[in-house]
Amino acid sequence: MRIAIDAMGGDKAPDAVISGAVEALELLEEGDEVILVGPKEVIEPKLPAQRSHRAVLTVVHAPDVIGMDDPPIDSLRKKPRSSISILAKLSKLGRTDAVISAGNTGACVAAFQMRMRNLQSVNRPGIAVVFPTFEGPVTICDVGANIACKPINLYQYAVMSSIYARELFGIQNPRVGLMSIGEEDAKGNEVVKKARGLIKQDPKINFIGNIEGRDIFKGVCDVAICEGFVGNVILKLTEGLVEGLVKAIKQEIVTHKFRLIIGPMFKGVMKRFFKKHDYHEYGGALLLGINGTALICHGASESRTIRNAIMATKKYHSVGINNKIAEYLLASSIVDEGQNAEPEDTALRVKDEQVD
Amino acid sequence: MRIAIDAMGGDKAPDAVISGAVEALELLEEGDEVILVGPKEVIEPKLPAQRSHRAVLTVVHAPDVIGMDDPPIDSLRKKPRSSISILAKLSKLGRTDAVISAGNTGACVAAFQMRMRNLQSVNRPGIAVVFPTFEGPVTICDVGANIACKPINLYQYAVMSSIYARELFGIQNPRVGLMSIGEEDAKGNEVVKKARGLIKQDPKINFIGNIEGRDIFKGVCDVAICEGFVGNVILKLTEGLVEGLVKAIKQEIVTHKFRLIIGPMFKGVMKRFFKKHDYHEYGGALLLGINGTALICHGASESRTIRNAIMATKKYHSVGINNKIAEYLLASSIVDEGQNAEPEDTALRVKDEQVD
Repeated sequence: MRIAIDAMGGDKAPDAVISGAVEALELLEEGDEVILVGPKEVIEPKLPAQRSHRAVLTVVHAPDVIGMDDPPIDSLRKKPRSSISILAKLSKLGRTDAVISAGNTGACVAAFQMRMRNLQSVNRPGIAVVFPTFEGPVTICDVGANIACKPINLYQYAVMSSIYARELFGIQNPRVGLMSIGEEDAKGNEVVKKARGLIKQDPKINFIGNIEGRDIFKGVCDVAICEGFVGNVILKLTEGLVEGLVKAIKQEIVTHKFRLIIGPMFKGVMKRFFKKHDYHEYGGALLLGINGTALICHGASESRTIRNAIMATKKYHSVGINNKIAEYLLASSIVDEGQNAEPEDTALRVKDEQVD
Repeated sequence: MRIAIDAMGGDKAPDAVISGAVEALELLEEGDEVILVGPKEVIEPKLPAQRSHRAVLTVVHAPDVIGMDDPPIDSLRKKPRSSISILAKLSKLGRTDAVISAGNTGACVAAFQMRMRNLQSVNRPGIAVVFPTFEGPVTICDVGANIACKPINLYQYAVMSSIYARELFGIQNPRVGLMSIGEEDAKGNEVVKKARGLIKQDPKINFIGNIEGRDIFKGVCDVAICEGFVGNVILKLTEGLVEGLVKAIKQEIVTHKFRLIIGPMFKGVMKRFFKKHDYHEYGGALLLGINGTALICHGASESRTIRNAIMATKKYHSVGINNKIAEYLLASSIVDEGQNAEPEDTALRVKDEQVD
């Protein structure tokens, strides 16, 4: 399997990405290939001298870099030779089986969606993120790819995420909850209510009905479905709150009269806690529903995150989740009322020159 | 001032409500009146024998109770003599200056909105909740009253919440953030983008632009504006996550080898932490934009929550926030593109018989 990685993506790039990629070489199989995409003059001096790993490491030159906070669409237009653009093109041209980036999320989603296109029968891809909650992993989809969500999109997220949770985490019959503002049938906006109707029609989905924000951490579901705006708020709120809460508890401890005793003990407790609930373990968020394998990693990714992302991508690909999704949806009688609009950026699509 | 309270609202009702009301009698002024609304035969035996408080305590009979999980609109229709219905009617008839309930939130919002009507120039009320964050109080509006939000509603929430934060917490020029999925202008759905345009047109609002989920806990804003679906998810997610996180940390501690030392110390730390970040201090969430004063308390309200709710209501009323909101919006040149639909439940409105 060939896995291409954006060497310049993430706050700790290129060092963390390169060392994560090198670590993965030993875990992959013979015949596998890791492709680092970025400026050759930056990447090559950082590669280890000894190159006798099981898997092969190659470099594809991409001279430009899209910054973490650059405007996505605009940057993709202006930098067709950025690492993210080249990554997407490699996939489109069949020169890689999977792409990974810890760079600008918006640019990744736009580039991957536009170049790689959707899987058959999928109307709109969604980003699936795994929350390592206190009650086990919960897959949340979508967390930001689709903020003009239609009921059919939410139904397809339920299908795709169920297959994902089953194949990746071995959850046999994943419980699917639909994010709303109350448990009763009548609760929610129009899109949620219609989506509820669609999901209920499919007896193969283990649908538990509406869930509320608090339920994500209560172990009531394995999969939580929501439109991208809500999912993105959930993702970032959770991150900010955990960070803020731990900081606030620490502040209480450093002013405690027994801080010299409680401080180091608490540090040990938090270390164990974070080890159990560590998003780095999952590598990144999968863009479900595109015709290929694309993993979007956290901007704060460390080398082990990248290594885990590579291994997750390998697993995802070898299990053949995309085929399972396409087969399922092709056989499903639940179809869209109206088509989703196409991603409108045709300007990006026509400029598909050959990757150098 | 007359303040009517739903004696049957909340998980700890009627005991917590009655004792909270009695506690408040000593803090209120002469001439003030607290009206407990609920079944007389339940309330009266629980009242203290000695009744020589500064403020007066009276009881208005309401034989029915709407359960915490009952379907809101349906229950209001079937139980016109429930404590929540009678509460709303008392306000409509001018027999109370404020209403408070820790009962079924959906039923409260529906009843208060429909009976009390909107303030002049307000298109749609919003629920404002105060998050006691690690960086100070952040007012979030709306957290569930309006899930079919228009740009003008978000603009008005920005205005109302700014006035609220200034008058109630003394924040002179509250920083207002608009919840979105990225900081750039172009980020967000259509409603958010249009709302952004409207808020920017008003130079009196201290608008800091888009915020993301994580920003709520980072001290970047005093007011966070969002549509009701998103706000409701934020509110419940925060509650569930804090609860889950504290529970998970506790679990780490009870299995720690020094648990006998670290356990009691951590308990002390958490006690201080929760004292600083205690939503009970704020009493409840205000329904901003209705013609009256209505506070909706948490279902887990304790007697001190109710006492604080009564005092918050008193402050809100005495500061005259409603007048300030009406004046501001009347003078504002920013108006709606199209009217909001009226709350459609006319069936509820025509049955406005006299309160017994």
